Amino acid sequence: MTTTVHLADLIAALGGDLLGEAQTPIARIAPLDEADGQSISFLANPKYQAQLSQTQAACVIVAPAFAEAAAARGADAGVAISAAIVTPDPYLYFARLTQWWAARMRPQAPARVHPSAVIDPSARLGAGVDIGPLVVIEADVEIGEGARIGPHCVIGQGARIGAGTRLSASVTVGFGCQIGARGIVHSGVVIGADGFGFAPNFKAGDASGWVKIEQLGNVRIGDDVEIGANTCIDRGALADTVLEDGVKLDNQIQIAHNVHIGRHTAIAGCTAIAGSTKIGAFCTIAGAANIVGHLSLADHVHVSAATLISRSISKPGLYSGAYPFEENASWEKNAATLRQLHALRTRLRELEKKNT
Amino acid sequence: MTTTVHLADLIAALGGDLLGEAQTPIARIAPLDEADGQSISFLANPKYQAQLSQTQAACVIVAPAFAEAAAARGADAGVAISAAIVTPDPYLYFARLTQWWAARMRPQAPARVHPSAVIDPSARLGAGVDIGPLVVIEADVEIGEGARIGPHCVIGQGARIGAGTRLSASVTVGFGCQIGARGIVHSGVVIGADGFGFAPNFKAGDASGWVKIEQLGNVRIGDDVEIGANTCIDRGALADTVLEDGVKLDNQIQIAHNVHIGRHTAIAGCTAIAGSTKIGAFCTIAGAANIVGHLSLADHVHVSAATLISRSISKPGLYSGAYPFEENASWEKNAATLRQLHALRTRLRELEKKNT
Amino acid sequence: MTTTVHLADLIAALGGDLLGEAQTPIARIAPLDEADGQSISFLANPKYQAQLSQTQAACVIVAPAFAEAAAARGADAGVAISAAIVTPDPYLYFARLTQWWAARMRPQAPARVHPSAVIDPSARLGAGVDIGPLVVIEADVEIGEGARIGPHCVIGQGARIGAGTRLSASVTVGFGCQIGARGIVHSGVVIGADGFGFAPNFKAGDASGWVKIEQLGNVRIGDDVEIGANTCIDRGALADTVLEDGVKLDNQIQIAHNVHIGRHTAIAGCTAIAGSTKIGAFCTIAGAANIVGHLSLADHVHVSAATLISRSISKPGLYSGAYPFEENASWEKNAATLRQLHALRTRLRELEKKNT
Repeated sequence: MTTTVHLADLIAALGGDLLGEAQTPIARIAPLDEADGQSISFLANPKYQAQLSQTQAACVIVAPAFAEAAAARGADAGVAISAAIVTPDPYLYFARLTQWWAARMRPQAPARVHPSAVIDPSARLGAGVDIGPLVVIEADVEIGEGARIGPHCVIGQGARIGAGTRLSASVTVGFGCQIGARGIVHSGVVIGADGFGFAPNFKAGDASGWVKIEQLGNVRIGDDVEIGANTCIDRGALADTVLEDGVKLDNQIQIAHNVHIGRHTAIAGCTAIAGSTKIGAFCTIAGAANIVGHLSLADHVHVSAATLISRSISKPGLYSGAYPFEENASWEKNAATLRQLHALRTRLRELEKKNT
Repeated sequence: MTTTVHLADLIAALGGDLLGEAQTPIARIAPLDEADGQSISFLANPKYQAQLSQTQAACVIVAPAFAEAAAARGADAGVAISAAIVTPDPYLYFARLTQWWAARMRPQAPARVHPSAVIDPSARLGAGVDIGPLVVIEADVEIGEGARIGPHCVIGQGARIGAGTRLSASVTVGFGCQIGARGIVHSGVVIGADGFGFAPNFKAGDASGWVKIEQLGNVRIGDDVEIGANTCIDRGALADTVLEDGVKLDNQIQIAHNVHIGRHTAIAGCTAIAGSTKIGAFCTIAGAANIVGHLSLADHVHVSAATLISRSISKPGLYSGAYPFEENASWEKNAATLRQLHALRTRLRELEKKNT
Repeated sequence: MTTTVHLADLIAALGGDLLGEAQTPIARIAPLDEADGQSISFLANPKYQAQLSQTQAACVIVAPAFAEAAAARGADAGVAISAAIVTPDPYLYFARLTQWWAARMRPQAPARVHPSAVIDPSARLGAGVDIGPLVVIEADVEIGEGARIGPHCVIGQGARIGAGTRLSASVTVGFGCQIGARGIVHSGVVIGADGFGFAPNFKAGDASGWVKIEQLGNVRIGDDVEIGANTCIDRGALADTVLEDGVKLDNQIQIAHNVHIGRHTAIAGCTAIAGSTKIGAFCTIAGAANIVGHLSLADHVHVSAATLISRSISKPGLYSGAYPFEENASWEKNAATLRQLHALRTRLRELEKKNT
């Protein structure tokens, strides 16, 4: 669906100081370098400043420092319309604009409980709850006001979903698990599968093997948490696995049993966190990082992509550990030499002794 | 189902020059070293040439250079039947043989729309479309002629599935997303979940946290694309995420928002590509590779397994960056020394100065 | 559900020598450092021995060597009750205790075939089979006695599920695949998607592209196998993909076509094993490891986290290959120097020559 709004509508909804014509029509949101004369764009990162004078956007969201340049760009870029919205934090304004835009362009259908859903009579659904087709809701589930449960979700016995939380299609929430208010859970997420725990029993000849440790804990997820597609969060072994308020997880993340993630920590796709590790608040963990079990990471720790964290970190900062890529022929030489690195150090020491 | 065919049937369907008896019965396809007297096998890689004289296969698919050896092998290997099919590209012939074989041994059931499916009346289904049990098809969906939608799939509002495309069980296609013709999508795939985008808003004491950037783009997938189980392809933030024609993705791949993958690029399992990265055409990316966001990779770039690509690549070639494994005791020494590598270089320089 | 049992109940069910009062009430199982006066705890790893004298647990499961300390701890820790259960392997006892506990606290509902399930009339269900809501069971499926199939599972044509095996919600088992007895399969698992195989055909201008190799094998899974959430096990290209008895897989593991995993091998989350690789028995593979295709690993091989195994391993032992992480500034220096490592070795050699 495409529809046209006017800058006046945006300002009325989101604030900001308008430089230019309030009736300027806007048909889309676009990056500076892809914007056309019906687009609104934004300058959040000063490194894209050069694009400001070139953009064809009808309106640009800018910080006060760029207000003059944004208003003046008309002549340089040869655009007919060169409005600007001035706001202290253009990226935040842009985020709110996308929310306002989505609410207008993709209005939610009225809530209904689809007749094909299989809902245990003991389940308690709050006012305005939307239940999609072929959903399964087991006994003693509680779903808060205004929550929306997408098609094919399965909510296990005794689970609780907070008010206003939205589950996309095909989310699985295990028995006894909890999600707070205003959460967003994408398709294919599995909350509350068993953690991976076994006792070895290889002494006896018969019945030898790994003996399962039943996972007796649950998963507890706070408010305002978003969880990306196909991410897994296992239930705890004895105590619960915990995600605090405001945590954001991308796709295909693995959270093992008894992990604890502090509030407002954001984790990018394909990262794995092993059992019982405690991540602080306000951390950011880049994609495909791995964090081994039973560690503790302080608040405000930042981890680079594809890094293995193998020890606890008590000091805020940025930590990295990815192998630098290069052309294969060079890599082969350097990687082979890496296996001799300790020996090279010893040889260097000996040379140093000779030279003193 | 196992059934027997004769070499004449294969030749009639797939071509090739037959050396040997056209009525030779074939019951299975097998590798050279596992073949028996009712098997057809193939020699594609000359490094397996030694297996040719040993194989028990009734028939071997070979290139012209091996025709003589293939026909002569009867005596050496002591096999009663030693037919050969000679063709310029035995591996390609083998691929087509598997397709012919599958079509015979696993014939598709006649198309039907299963009565348990929940299909919005506004959806448009082409001729011969097959809809499995408990499928959900939302409003304004369009499904092309002969497409097959497996059980438990969810096709979101306004999505389009091309002619002849097959979705296995439990595939999720988000609203507004498109898949071209003749595609194959395996179970658990999630197309069109939200990309991972937030603006930080940690200044105010209240309502502090990450502010969601609604993802306003879609996913556009070309023709002849195959997507492996549990792979995720996120919708774009403003513009679309794009897979061009002929792209092949293995299982558990993560494609972030606004990624663009050029035609005929093939990507092995568990690889992750971060947001806005552009991969060229005819690339191959091995398993568990990671490519950071906002990069550009040229056509014909090849990436080795478990490599992190952290910068754009403008030159075709093979790029690698995996840590070489070794016995743990050696690894511990070398990895510890790696943390001193820059210092070692400095010490080496000083020694060099002393020695000049 | 929380309920109270007495130590006498545990001893009756699980054995062990009780030191202390048989009527001691127990309300929960907890780690030593989180236990309260109604908890039972265990000391499995001697490195936690110091916690024994401090724990508030009513009862501690210990090995004979710690029996005295466990019984004596009452005075030190100031706890009213200080019972102990003495057993040769406290961790194994703990595992069995969790099973006994789960059976009491989370009793299984009586088996039923939910009326919303779509079951082909040719399927054969053993006695006491439980089929959840909205399950799809295709033609010629066989499900063994007492198996439990969770909501939204799809069991493809001709698949076989062994006696007593439990599938959580939303598991997909492809046509012709087999799972043995007493298995546990968690949500989102995909068994029997196509392996990733294509023949290149880029010579002709038209119809150029990757040509699919139909995957004609199945997946065969032994008895007592557990498979974690969202893990994928692809069907074989010609022969089958095989998991032997007692294999344990964590979440989000990728098992490619024709992999063979020996009995009682355990693999942690996010590990990927490429095609045709053979893993021995009694191996352990840590999380996020990657094993390239066509390799062979001996029995009793152990692989560390985030390690790429790129060659076959014939000798039991522990193998590692992860890049050591550090603060980003140091990493940048060391990683940049790593690209010169081979050159540094050459320079060192030259210096050594000069110094001899």
